[in-house]
Formats: sequence, structure tokens, C-alpha cells
Amino acid sequence: MTSNSADLTELSAQDRILQTAHDLFYRDGIRATGIDKIIAESGVAKATFYRYFPSKNDLIRAFLDYRHQRWMNWFEEALARHGAKPGGGLAPLLPALAEWFQNPVYRGCAFINSVSELGTLADVVEISRNHKQDMTAVIAQLLPEPEQREQLAIAVAIAVDGAIVKAQFENQTSDKAETLAGLAILLKVLSAQKAMDSP
Amino acid sequence: MTSNSADLTELSAQDRILQTAHDLFYRDGIRATGIDKIIAESGVAKATFYRYFPSKNDLIRAFLDYRHQRWMNWFEEALARHGAKPGGGLAPLLPALAEWFQNPVYRGCAFINSVSELGTLADVVEISRNHKQDMTAVIAQLLPEPEQREQLAIAVAIAVDGAIVKAQFENQTSDKAETLAGLAILLKVLSAQKAMDSP
Repeated sequence: MTSNSADLTELSAQDRILQTAHDLFYRDGIRATGIDKIIAESGVAKATFYRYFPSKNDLIRAFLDYRHQRWMNWFEEALARHGAKPGGGLAPLLPALAEWFQNPVYRGCAFINSVSELGTLADVVEISRNHKQDMTAVIAQLLPEPEQREQLAIAVAIAVDGAIVKAQFENQTSDKAETLAGLAILLKVLSAQKAMDSP
Repeated sequence: MTSNSADLTELSAQDRILQTAHDLFYRDGIRATGIDKIIAESGVAKATFYRYFPSKNDLIRAFLDYRHQRWMNWFEEALARHGAKPGGGLAPLLPALAEWFQNPVYRGCAFINSVSELGTLADVVEISRNHKQDMTAVIAQLLPEPEQREQLAIAVAIAVDGAIVKAQFENQTSDKAETLAGLAILLKVLSAQKAMDSP
């Protein structure tokens, strides 16, 4: 999630369309991006485009699947790079998310944005719910106490989504310090949850 | 925030347009709602519409101002109804938000949705940032420890926004139990923050 998509010339027509749609949908929004622009920027023939994606809804679903793979790969890679271990605690979340929030192309979560923009269209809510469940499952693995994992991971995921949204509001300033300070407090108090429950 | 807007026939032309735009923008999204539909549903003449709102961006700004007033009034009223007092703690937040999440017309936060959909268009980010600052200021007044208020209120607001987004993902099922359980954990650990910092 640290740069835009790869050089289009090395890709198949289908992948060129998908990467172009990804970059434009994420940057400008789905409704704001017309099919004609995606066809022009991906450099494929109109007939080729419609062979792969008969409708815009087909392309939206393919975009969300592609984004899901790409974001989850980044998320797990970034957490590992910041020292994540099974049961090792929530600490790697903050530097990993800070990386993403400070990325110049950051425009929030593609799934939150799609649900905001499209509501129930094109299975967007269902696909997005699955994405968040997978994100929550990765977070759960960081938590040290197996018996609390599921409930606590949902709380952590809510904190993460709140920070994702807030960082998007600060997009113009590229100053995400307030978001990261707020998220740091949330992760600290959530990490101390076990200790707090003890007598 | 417990029902759609009031009977349009009792309102001035400007207010009829604004309430119609509010209900349609909130339900279907801003880009998905054409000016012609707002004119038809509000029952005003085209010329009247354009006298009040020369461009769609003017209407978007007026919608966000109207929504801000309306949501803040609801938020403070609902918190008070659930026992909110200055310095009295975060407990009223959960039942107040539960009310909103379980409302049949719930479709998340109009400001989060607008930033998701429109990005930097029509001052949406700036207006939305101000809205969230006002929400955070109301939350801050609930916190008992003046010296921690500002920082902690930002963390609480992040938790609230994360819950708002998650409840939107659960919109089809009208089952917000998972969101409310996660938010309850967050509010509990945030409320215990002071105790935790003590030796």
C-alpha cells in the first residue's frame, strides 16, 4: 500500500483494467469514475473490456476482490515487519497503520468508502463485511489471551476503523498525528484489558 | 434521528428542498441523487430551486450544515435522556448510539459518507472535520478528568466513529449486537483509563 499500481505495460489486458479501475476507484470514487475513462487509461479495446467485465457491477466486485487480496497482503506483511507474532500483542498495529495513513495516495478504506457510496449495490456490503472479518481475524491472532480473542478483536477492529476514517478527514494536511495519538490510547487501554479484569 | 423528515407541506420552499435533499442524499448517496429528483420530490418550481441553490455544490454544503445541526441536536438530547452530566462519564454514549444504529433509516454518518464519496469536493472534508470536532467536544464534557479530557475525547470519538462504520456494514441484518458489544468494551476500557494510569 506504499505506492500506486505497477507498470501497466507488463500486465495482461484483464490485469491492466483491474489495476486502472483500482487506482481510479480508490482515488476518485466509484460513481465518479466512468467506464470510458477506465478503458482509455488501461489502453484496452472496448470489446476486450466488456468481454472481461460485462457490467460496471462486475468490475466493482472484481475491484473489491482485488483490493481485498492486496490490502490483506500488505497488512500481514507490514505487521510482520513491525514484529507481529501470534499472541505477541497489539503493538505492531500502530506503526503499520501509520505507514498506510501517511502514504500520499491514502484515501481511507476502499470497503468503508464503497459502502458509504453504494450502499447495498453490487453486494458491496457483504463483500466489505467479509473483508472486515478477515482483518479482525488477523488482529485476533495478535492477542495473547485465547479466551478473550474474539470479543476483544472486534473492539480493536472498531478502533482501527475509527482511526482509518479520522485519518481520511486529515487527508489534506498529511498530518495524522492526532489520529495516531488517539489510536495509541485505544490500543494501550485495550492491551491492558486482561490486567484490568483481574482482581 | 428517529424518523425521516417532517411533513413537507408545512415548510417553506427552501426548507422543503433541504429536507428532501437530506433524506435522499442520506439514503441513496449524493452522486446517486440527481437535482431533478430533488426538485420533483420537494414539489418546488425549477426556478425556485436554482434561486436558493445555484449549483449542486451549494446544496451539498447546505445539506451538511442542516445535517450537522440536526445530528448535534439529536446527540445532545439523546445523551441527556440517558443521564449525561458534565464529568458524569461515558455510560450514556452506548444507549444513545444504540438508538441511532437501530433506527430503520440508519445509513451511517452523513459526514463520513460524504468524505468517502466526494473526497475534497465542495469543502466536504473541512465541513466534516468541524462536525467531528463538535461531536468530540460534546464527548469531552462527559469525561470526569479535566486534564485528560482533550486527548481521551479524541480516542473516544475514534471508537464512536469505528462503531458508526461497523453498524453500517450490519445495516441489512438490523442486528447491531456485535457493534454494540465491541463499543461497550472500548467505552469500558476508556472509562478505566484514569485508574489504570495510577500506580
